[in-house]
Amino acid sequence: MTPSSRPTSPFTLARRAARLEPSVIREILKLTERPGVISLAGGLPAPEGFPVEALRAATERVLTRHPREALQYAASEGFGPLREWAAAQLQAQGLAVTPGQVLITSGSQQGLDLVGKLLIDAGSRVAVESPTYLGALQAFTPYEPVFASVEGDDDGPLPAALEAVRDARFLYLLPNFQNPGGRCMGAARRDALAERSAALGLPVVEDNPYGDLWYDEPPPPPVSARLPGGSVVLGSLSKVLAPGLRLGYVAAPPSLFPKLLQAKQAADLHTPGFNQRIAHEVLADGLLERHLPEVRARYRAQRDAMHAALQTHLPPGCRWVRPGGGMFFWVELPAGLDATALLPRAVEAGVAYVPGAAFYAGAPQANRLRLSFVTVPPARIAEAVSLLGALLKEALQ
Amino acid sequence: MTPSSRPTSPFTLARRAARLEPSVIREILKLTERPGVISLAGGLPAPEGFPVEALRAATERVLTRHPREALQYAASEGFGPLREWAAAQLQAQGLAVTPGQVLITSGSQQGLDLVGKLLIDAGSRVAVESPTYLGALQAFTPYEPVFASVEGDDDGPLPAALEAVRDARFLYLLPNFQNPGGRCMGAARRDALAERSAALGLPVVEDNPYGDLWYDEPPPPPVSARLPGGSVVLGSLSKVLAPGLRLGYVAAPPSLFPKLLQAKQAADLHTPGFNQRIAHEVLADGLLERHLPEVRARYRAQRDAMHAALQTHLPPGCRWVRPGGGMFFWVELPAGLDATALLPRAVEAGVAYVPGAAFYAGAPQANRLRLSFVTVPPARIAEAVSLLGALLKEALQ
Repeated sequence: MTPSSRPTSPFTLARRAARLEPSVIREILKLTERPGVISLAGGLPAPEGFPVEALRAATERVLTRHPREALQYAASEGFGPLREWAAAQLQAQGLAVTPGQVLITSGSQQGLDLVGKLLIDAGSRVAVESPTYLGALQAFTPYEPVFASVEGDDDGPLPAALEAVRDARFLYLLPNFQNPGGRCMGAARRDALAERSAALGLPVVEDNPYGDLWYDEPPPPPVSARLPGGSVVLGSLSKVLAPGLRLGYVAAPPSLFPKLLQAKQAADLHTPGFNQRIAHEVLADGLLERHLPEVRARYRAQRDAMHAALQTHLPPGCRWVRPGGGMFFWVELPAGLDATALLPRAVEAGVAYVPGAAFYAGAPQANRLRLSFVTVPPARIAEAVSLLGALLKEALQ
Repeated sequence: MTPSSRPTSPFTLARRAARLEPSVIREILKLTERPGVISLAGGLPAPEGFPVEALRAATERVLTRHPREALQYAASEGFGPLREWAAAQLQAQGLAVTPGQVLITSGSQQGLDLVGKLLIDAGSRVAVESPTYLGALQAFTPYEPVFASVEGDDDGPLPAALEAVRDARFLYLLPNFQNPGGRCMGAARRDALAERSAALGLPVVEDNPYGDLWYDEPPPPPVSARLPGGSVVLGSLSKVLAPGLRLGYVAAPPSLFPKLLQAKQAADLHTPGFNQRIAHEVLADGLLERHLPEVRARYRAQRDAMHAALQTHLPPGCRWVRPGGGMFFWVELPAGLDATALLPRAVEAGVAYVPGAAFYAGAPQANRLRLSFVTVPPARIAEAVSLLGALLKEALQ
């Protein structure tokens, strides 16, 4: 048989592969790498805030004291002391979690993938906020769910709307400084959602990458604090330490944990012990207590700069809520403007954002866009928003 | 509603979760952590061989020169120079692979998971060697395939047996120093398998964690060298550098790569940039050229020690082939002995192994066991095999 008579590709893709589409954000990030464009698109933490010296010292200690353990295969559950640290973080938020319920993951994105693997069958309904975190939609999608967007308002999903999704495998919530919406759900709404979820037997998957990034006041206790046994909680070190370490965690009820652990083992055996030990060194050393106030001060100033710039430069009819934490402003444009259609012109003008349409599981709102205030400093934020404002005014004429 | 009226667990597991079972090896590793037991069970590389100093110096360089890039979010494809390095490794084996076809993964275990996600539907047939790598069975299982064991001999699967699995989504092959079998497939068998696979339109997924660990002569070129466009190739840095970094790679044809990349992004965004840059530093510095001969010399001596010990201590009727590389001896016990049933007595006597039954997708051979020669030094190997021999002689009486 000659090579030319071979079929070009003998591969048959799984049905789910048809749903694996390029991430809009990813494609946009490529676009925004063009020189001269100020990107407010990606949710990249300010690299000036990475605790480089602390990580360097911690790496030195790990490779001096425990090189063989750090470089060897390790337990799928994660490094014991880091699991204890994560459990203590969750306990401080009012959650009854033991270290034995904590799985260390390769970023909280992997936690979402494992939760999807464990809980979603083809055709299962999964209830999500609207808009919701794009990465969660991407993580769940390969398991072929049917997404059900829960009706909500500026405070989050409406408790009365849960009845309509009571048959969902779970409700995915991002209560603290949501990506992309920026809103922090109030305590009363959290209580009401917990009560309805418990009454309906609707499990909750509660994601919390931004809880430590508050600039006015800490967020209320998690919804899961009132849902013992009825929720899975995810956390991340990407925003408070550094994303490039790829460290996150999942806490699951004892009924789920063994299967979650098997899924983790099948997926990548374990998260790098090297990284886990380095992170634990800096965390045990109390880095966050010193480091977080600095991070908050930096991002608070950037948030305020963006809020002021939006007030100065955006045309009438634009609407946004100043976020109390997190990374993003979620801007509603005057009806009739399409943020996706405007993006190429914005990039041409020197500013990039993420069109809001990417964040909807159902019908998108075309006149929304997401602006990150964490990546570039205040002066650049002001410049970028001024360019955006000029473009919007032009588009409205 | 009072807490006591809540259902204990509102979670419904996905159908695939029923197939997520604790790994036999994992449970055994727990057992073998008992003090005083010499474990020949796990495939843990000898930690004396980890290039600790080189990694320490590389980390220092990365955190001095590129701290922000190493600690920031990064491209899902992987770090460019590491992709180039991996492509060069594959090219040196005779594969026509460009860096753009290489995806850096969190260990090659993740490569197996992503391949499963991309290519397996519930009910799809997946053709495997018999026995085969347990971790591959675990990675593929959540996608609910039906495994088809391909008939083979001491040289690997029989080309004539591929006809019976021509409808499989792929054939999973581990030609070099197979885990658990230890055998290295000969060049003629590779050619014949490639020819039959191409003729049948049966794609190949070729795994190669042990190819660099040869002790007598390098293995022949991969099966995939004769299957352009018809195979996916996996590689690992766990055996040549250190497993605790969790670095591997997958090379896929251009027809598959974009979907593979989406699956990676959904699974964990990207493999830690920190680890990728550290690994690239030591690899670009030519570490492997200096380091691999040392690793080979160490493991060759340990292999020879185990072969000699088996000849000295095992009772008549035991059969094994001295492996030319890799990590394992695969021992056939006299008919009637059950390696799983004997394991508790072995651990009691002070030696641990993995019963062969774990490595079969279909009907297991009860009288097989796997012994690792890489984890403990020659004197301990001799002691452990002597204990095993005594136990087997007793069991045969």
